[in-house]
Amino acid sequence: MEFPSKLLEKAVDEISQLPGIGKRTALRLMLHLLKQPEDQTNRLTEALTKMRQDIIFCKSCHNISDKEICDICSNPARDHQTICVVEDIRDVMALENTRLFKGIYHVLGGKISPIDGIGPSQLNIQSLIDKVKKGEVKEIIFALSSTMEGDTTNFYIYKHVKDFEIITSTIARGISVGDELEYADEVTLGRSLIHRVPFESAFKAV
Amino acid sequence: MEFPSKLLEKAVDEISQLPGIGKRTALRLMLHLLKQPEDQTNRLTEALTKMRQDIIFCKSCHNISDKEICDICSNPARDHQTICVVEDIRDVMALENTRLFKGIYHVLGGKISPIDGIGPSQLNIQSLIDKVKKGEVKEIIFALSSTMEGDTTNFYIYKHVKDFEIITSTIARGISVGDELEYADEVTLGRSLIHRVPFESAFKAV
Repeated sequence: MEFPSKLLEKAVDEISQLPGIGKRTALRLMLHLLKQPEDQTNRLTEALTKMRQDIIFCKSCHNISDKEICDICSNPARDHQTICVVEDIRDVMALENTRLFKGIYHVLGGKISPIDGIGPSQLNIQSLIDKVKKGEVKEIIFALSSTMEGDTTNFYIYKHVKDFEIITSTIARGISVGDELEYADEVTLGRSLIHRVPFESAFKAV
Repeated sequence: MEFPSKLLEKAVDEISQLPGIGKRTALRLMLHLLKQPEDQTNRLTEALTKMRQDIIFCKSCHNISDKEICDICSNPARDHQTICVVEDIRDVMALENTRLFKGIYHVLGGKISPIDGIGPSQLNIQSLIDKVKKGEVKEIIFALSSTMEGDTTNFYIYKHVKDFEIITSTIARGISVGDELEYADEVTLGRSLIHRVPFESAFKAV
């Protein structure tokens, strides 16, 4: 692409470094910004700068936060002995949306993936094991993706905490609510069969 | 969506104002930025600010430019009497990529669209008509989208310039090079039949 303006080219180059944004999309976004009042660009750049400079990670659960200890970890109404292990902050948001979990979280910041060069030491795993060692934990719920990397991470952590007196579980895998059986893959269907739930408890109001 | 951080929420809000970027995509982009070195965010915001503040529109053709008169309009090797009328800067870039047009452009900045509240006065139409009136133009090539709005704009401009001694044309509509006939719509196919091209000239090397 040949650009009529170096300034435009530079802006397109930078925004197209974001994942999933190609040069064409970037150009469309920049032309949109140019058509809008200058104020919109200023608000956007200010929000980005502030976020990148001032955001911190909760010292306890490693979730994104505006404070040293996040709102969830500092909430006395929550059960601090039940920890849900997740990959990243989007999973915390998804689980919070269910309004069914009253414990606290532990955000790993990713999953073990040798192919991407991500080992246990790059993730927030040690601080979780330390919590277990200190006897601060009663139950760990693993809520990682159901992928090869997710399972590797599950087993790695499990290996390090299984000898302590804690309850461990993973979230249930099975047919999504609203899904038709015929479209489910065999592995999911198989797991949902093995881990079948007593009829009376399956339809209990949540 | 409930965010664990106001700073993150603000950044997501701002970036999701861009066209085609929803809240989920915005969140993904922001989490990516947070994982990258702070330098990347700084380069991005600086490029956006500079672009929005310093970019100007060419006084002659209204194309985006870093100078008062853009590189195309200030190039003496180009034919300044042949003007190609386009909607926006992306069309200029697409036509320049063909390397087949040696004239100059006139960027309207959109097309007439009553439904979106865009009338002729919001577009750079008058300056084109003025050029024609001053006798600066020998030929006008219309290269607008082949849509209702594009055609409305075509006819509006044509009405104002047709009484002057200039040549007017529109770019050819027809089957795309590489396309199979059976997938073409009837209107396109019909036009390509009516405006058929002498065999010898159709395959001339460009």
